[in-house]
Amino acid sequence: MQRYWQAANYLTIGQIYLQDNPLLREPLQVEHIKPRLLGHWETSPGLRFIYVHLNRLITERDAQVIYLAGPGHGGPAILATVYLEVTYSEVYPDVSEDFAGMRLLFRRFSTPGGVPSHVSVPTPGSIHEGGELSYVLTHAFGAAFDNPDLIVAAVVGDGEAETGPLEGSWKSVHFLNPARDGAVLPILHLNGYKIANPTVLGRTSDADVRAMLEGHGYDVHFVEGDDPALMHQVFAATLDTCYERIRDIQRDARENGVSDRVRWPAIVLRTPKGWTGPQSVHGVPVEGTFRAHQVPLSDVRTDPDQLKQLESWLRGYEPETVFDETGRLAPSLAALSPKGDRRMGANPYANGGTLAVDLDLPDFREYALPVEQPAVVRAESTRRLAEMLRDVFTRNAAQGNFRIFSPDEANSNRLGPVFEVENRCFVGRRIPGDEHLSPDGRVMEVLSEHLCEGWLEGYILTGRHGLYVTYEAFAMVSASMTVQHAKWLEEAVNLPWRDPIPSLNILLTSTC
Amino acid sequence: MQRYWQAANYLTIGQIYLQDNPLLREPLQVEHIKPRLLGHWETSPGLRFIYVHLNRLITERDAQVIYLAGPGHGGPAILATVYLEVTYSEVYPDVSEDFAGMRLLFRRFSTPGGVPSHVSVPTPGSIHEGGELSYVLTHAFGAAFDNPDLIVAAVVGDGEAETGPLEGSWKSVHFLNPARDGAVLPILHLNGYKIANPTVLGRTSDADVRAMLEGHGYDVHFVEGDDPALMHQVFAATLDTCYERIRDIQRDARENGVSDRVRWPAIVLRTPKGWTGPQSVHGVPVEGTFRAHQVPLSDVRTDPDQLKQLESWLRGYEPETVFDETGRLAPSLAALSPKGDRRMGANPYANGGTLAVDLDLPDFREYALPVEQPAVVRAESTRRLAEMLRDVFTRNAAQGNFRIFSPDEANSNRLGPVFEVENRCFVGRRIPGDEHLSPDGRVMEVLSEHLCEGWLEGYILTGRHGLYVTYEAFAMVSASMTVQHAKWLEEAVNLPWRDPIPSLNILLTSTC
Repeated sequence: MQRYWQAANYLTIGQIYLQDNPLLREPLQVEHIKPRLLGHWETSPGLRFIYVHLNRLITERDAQVIYLAGPGHGGPAILATVYLEVTYSEVYPDVSEDFAGMRLLFRRFSTPGGVPSHVSVPTPGSIHEGGELSYVLTHAFGAAFDNPDLIVAAVVGDGEAETGPLEGSWKSVHFLNPARDGAVLPILHLNGYKIANPTVLGRTSDADVRAMLEGHGYDVHFVEGDDPALMHQVFAATLDTCYERIRDIQRDARENGVSDRVRWPAIVLRTPKGWTGPQSVHGVPVEGTFRAHQVPLSDVRTDPDQLKQLESWLRGYEPETVFDETGRLAPSLAALSPKGDRRMGANPYANGGTLAVDLDLPDFREYALPVEQPAVVRAESTRRLAEMLRDVFTRNAAQGNFRIFSPDEANSNRLGPVFEVENRCFVGRRIPGDEHLSPDGRVMEVLSEHLCEGWLEGYILTGRHGLYVTYEAFAMVSASMTVQHAKWLEEAVNLPWRDPIPSLNILLTSTC
Repeated sequence: MQRYWQAANYLTIGQIYLQDNPLLREPLQVEHIKPRLLGHWETSPGLRFIYVHLNRLITERDAQVIYLAGPGHGGPAILATVYLEVTYSEVYPDVSEDFAGMRLLFRRFSTPGGVPSHVSVPTPGSIHEGGELSYVLTHAFGAAFDNPDLIVAAVVGDGEAETGPLEGSWKSVHFLNPARDGAVLPILHLNGYKIANPTVLGRTSDADVRAMLEGHGYDVHFVEGDDPALMHQVFAATLDTCYERIRDIQRDARENGVSDRVRWPAIVLRTPKGWTGPQSVHGVPVEGTFRAHQVPLSDVRTDPDQLKQLESWLRGYEPETVFDETGRLAPSLAALSPKGDRRMGANPYANGGTLAVDLDLPDFREYALPVEQPAVVRAESTRRLAEMLRDVFTRNAAQGNFRIFSPDEANSNRLGPVFEVENRCFVGRRIPGDEHLSPDGRVMEVLSEHLCEGWLEGYILTGRHGLYVTYEAFAMVSASMTVQHAKWLEEAVNLPWRDPIPSLNILLTSTC
């Protein structure tokens, strides 16, 4: 995987800096450099490192995995990996697997009218945009619900880990049923820095990070270091361990049933910021410091020393050995990519519209309230709606592709009738007196608007259906997420390869 | 404290149910009951339990404490305790310390045109409204910054503990300087239930709750049980231990300086939901279950059994012994209330306008950009603003009442000039290469819009000044908090006893 990672590293740094000479066949000149280095990206070596290791896992185990990249500005890293696995060229044929395609890949990135610097809608295999940091874990769990074969790898950066909604998402394991749902493998990637500051978790001891995650219910595996050769071995072994643990948990639950919460594996990966990038620039340390954020070499067009440094950085990834003379990935490396739909960029779970099964809906007219004459009937409209929702649960029970999400308000919102046929989901200790509470429930109640909205988004982005119910007064809490989702839809509709996904349904109650 | 708590319990249940016969001088009749039991409240025995114990601490140690009640619908509990300490009658003289006043207290509560059911603006001693759950800890830390003598007791309910912004707030200890700032004592109160569901932490083992909080950096103290006599002893001892720990931490930091993060005490209190309320209603268990949420006896006007149960519940608190014949708190109990400004309802820190010192501001004209002729000068407006902010820091350094809050974007927003005189705040491990990072800094950078906005709100509600800087695109993340704060101001302006607080300043950058 070391050389595959080098190829991905090369393609990432190429996207950031180069507009020509993509294979470095000639010595690097100023005219090969992009005219403006916008600075809205990161080199993100960790994102690629994790991706290529998941590739190995997928290939060896025939695992069904999608990849959610939390860190912001990680776009070029994922573009590199989906290009290497040839998903990108299949979706965008002009970005071909050769010299001309690589040149186009580099030119289009972060250019006006080109490709955005975040993982985003046009990125094959993506259901999560790394812009408004906070939501990678809640999206991941939403995707895993009712997808028993799926493993969602979710990379959480230590910047994002500081946000409230992300911190509130760890608890999703209390709602993940190992018999019925898929798995989420969180990879908390601590490179220590945000834009100009150390991160809180970056400066927190392993013991405290472990305690926090164990307290949330995880079985924590640390992988730390900066020697790539060693790190490849340790990370591969850890990924194998986590995979086996996930499958053991699922096998046990599927054979013996689910009682209490289980301890799912999670990985904490500590690597230097700007790993394998320039050690220092004009004597000031860069790798492993906040200065590696965004563009470590910012003056390559005007500073000949920096230009040289960039060239030796790029050549360090040995483009001439990882690509053949036409610009195609060397066959020995290409053999390491997963095949067909197993490629994370091509996995149908990340293009949920292709998997969506229509809901079997009753005729809503049957739920009309008979009103014989004006001003004599008194009724609660949501109670009536709940009767229809109850029947939606019943009609779609076999395909298990409908859920209600609410911040602990189903009863308060007069949705009680759904509990005639459906339960609240809770995977944990249950005691006598609990009502309609089961690990098998599909009414998701947690006192977090962010979790409810995010779970639903992950659920529909992977092709299922749902309804988020909240008091109007509190809808504002997660409104920025709703806006982000709408922007996603707005762009997705322009991409012919993305099938339309089910709608995001929100019911506002207690309106005034 | 047991009898003082009984008095508070009595006053709370009285507010919920009674419109007359406030001292139960006659047998309880249907006509003494409020015509509509709106159901928007909780009996909240824990909130009062903690309050009366803090009273003891304040009295014995002359401690400077304010009280932030996170749980929703906890209004009547705090109205009871501020009435008992006579703050309420001082602010609202018609709610006097006698039979007539008690009757008015009961009648006004949760009545159209009366007093809201949340702790809210009209509640003396409050700087935090328990409506949109999430923000009690961030407000608490904001209040503690630069108030070295203050202890902010912050009660976090296990419902609120599920929200993202609350979970993201625990990390505030990484920004609390024990030499310069006050202390926050979080009390995580787990009664196990939300409206109709168990809570996640309610069903989490002590070991996992402890691990999570230790991971966040706390020294965790559990108090669990349901026998009031025993619980009073254990809680009092725990509060003493935590108080001494806080003072030790502060003494050490103030004598020897601050280097690494310290482990602040936090309390986890587990008591039954509806503690000391009806054990069961018509054979269905209530105390200790979700049915104790809001109104445990909902049919007292129509069900004679429930009316009897209510009477015996109320009489169980022995109103005839805790109040004298005029309706005044018995003198032996009144002696237990803190005195004057030390009462949490009268503490000036919770009426920040009374303490606010104007900022010494330079003349903004001095920072105008000279423009000799049109269209020749190119400049960044925020960089110019930063020069003014830098000088604001310098002019107000002695009084230490100005801070900037930003999600890791000060440099990105071209506010760099402030670092000529001020540092970023970080209380934790620092290493060579860190820039402008110090436990003494007053530029607060954390990647959480919720924390930034909430810290600033807590800071200005206690009479200081600040500026929240964020990209326009991400202001939406915490917009609901901004709206809540505006509603607070809207109501506060009608209360003559609340002095105006400094403005909430928000700078939106990267606008488009």
